[in-house]
Amino acid sequence: MIPIICIVGTSNVGKTTFIEKLLPELTRRGYKVGTVKHDVHGFEMDREGKDTWRHRQAGAQTIAISSPVQMALIRRTSDEMPLEELVSRLFWAEDLVLAEGFKRLHFPKIEVFRSEKSEEPLCGPGDNLMALVSDDTIIAPGGAPRFGADDAVLVADLIEDRFLRERKRPKIAIHLDGHKLPLNDFVADFVRGGICGMLSSLRGWSPPRQLDIHIRLEEDA
Amino acid sequence: MIPIICIVGTSNVGKTTFIEKLLPELTRRGYKVGTVKHDVHGFEMDREGKDTWRHRQAGAQTIAISSPVQMALIRRTSDEMPLEELVSRLFWAEDLVLAEGFKRLHFPKIEVFRSEKSEEPLCGPGDNLMALVSDDTIIAPGGAPRFGADDAVLVADLIEDRFLRERKRPKIAIHLDGHKLPLNDFVADFVRGGICGMLSSLRGWSPPRQLDIHIRLEEDA
Repeated sequence: MIPIICIVGTSNVGKTTFIEKLLPELTRRGYKVGTVKHDVHGFEMDREGKDTWRHRQAGAQTIAISSPVQMALIRRTSDEMPLEELVSRLFWAEDLVLAEGFKRLHFPKIEVFRSEKSEEPLCGPGDNLMALVSDDTIIAPGGAPRFGADDAVLVADLIEDRFLRERKRPKIAIHLDGHKLPLNDFVADFVRGGICGMLSSLRGWSPPRQLDIHIRLEEDA
Repeated sequence: MIPIICIVGTSNVGKTTFIEKLLPELTRRGYKVGTVKHDVHGFEMDREGKDTWRHRQAGAQTIAISSPVQMALIRRTSDEMPLEELVSRLFWAEDLVLAEGFKRLHFPKIEVFRSEKSEEPLCGPGDNLMALVSDDTIIAPGGAPRFGADDAVLVADLIEDRFLRERKRPKIAIHLDGHKLPLNDFVADFVRGGICGMLSSLRGWSPPRQLDIHIRLEEDA
């Protein structure tokens, strides 16, 4: 699973601005970073009259557009896709995902805080706060370190120490209908070894960096 | 693998218009259909100044936006992602993908043809043409059936017979770094049974409809 960090804070406190400082610093260090934006108002990515817009109007469930330099996807959902499922399905080449918002989830958080915007931080001691970004002299909840709004380098150091240095270890993630199957290290290694061993005798196998297996067991009734 | 059909034809011949007739007919029959549009000119899904646009400008590799009714994704690519990889990674709930364009690929094709637009169809006898959609009295290349531009119901029948009726069988798809590992039916069943058998003894297992396994074996150097 790609590590997810939520960048939280009250409206207009500077979350996107801080992400704009953090992203180039992580990219400069060689990491590929994805972002997820939580949208509560409904967004419009497509433009009326475009072919993709016409596909959607005609009932397509998911529309992709592909070009040599980028690709895009729009998918209808009946409920909001959980952040963990969204990241596990749609991100695979990234080392880290920064999610803007999602303050109620259990992921590690960096809160951006300005006392002119709110009296106290959103995060309390049990909220998995890994850093408070604020130029105010305030003690961060739960003993998290505090960094200034321009300290993206120091925050990148913290992220790298905590999430990115250990990414060298082979990993396995198993999802049953989008829900993660919990695995301890022993079982994870056993299952990974068993699957790779079984496949490695097949014609066409050569050791990959990334192996993806999708099994469809039954259809809807 | 979700079946892919390419809807091909010369520019402005009516490919999107035909897809607009075919999609509601397939949807009415209970199928979930995805579409892929090939874009050669470069497209702009995002809008300047939006948070997602700012994430991208700051260097994010992939940006997702999530809401209760839809989600969207924009991903930078260094080369165009092959259609098969795009579909296998980004579509999972669909029964069928209609790809507009991509006439040089080997997938089954439906060509939309109008003699006022070109002298003869793009597809020749070896081009995997499954149907020609044209109101002109023309013999379709390779003996494919010809349908009128309003015959979406008949074309949907053909698609259903050829690709959708047999989708009840459990399937497995294995990708090594995005490239599909070829499997015959015996090996596919053996590997699927082996993996499911190994996982089914784990705590947390309950038989899913869809099982996804992602294994990361090594990092880039």
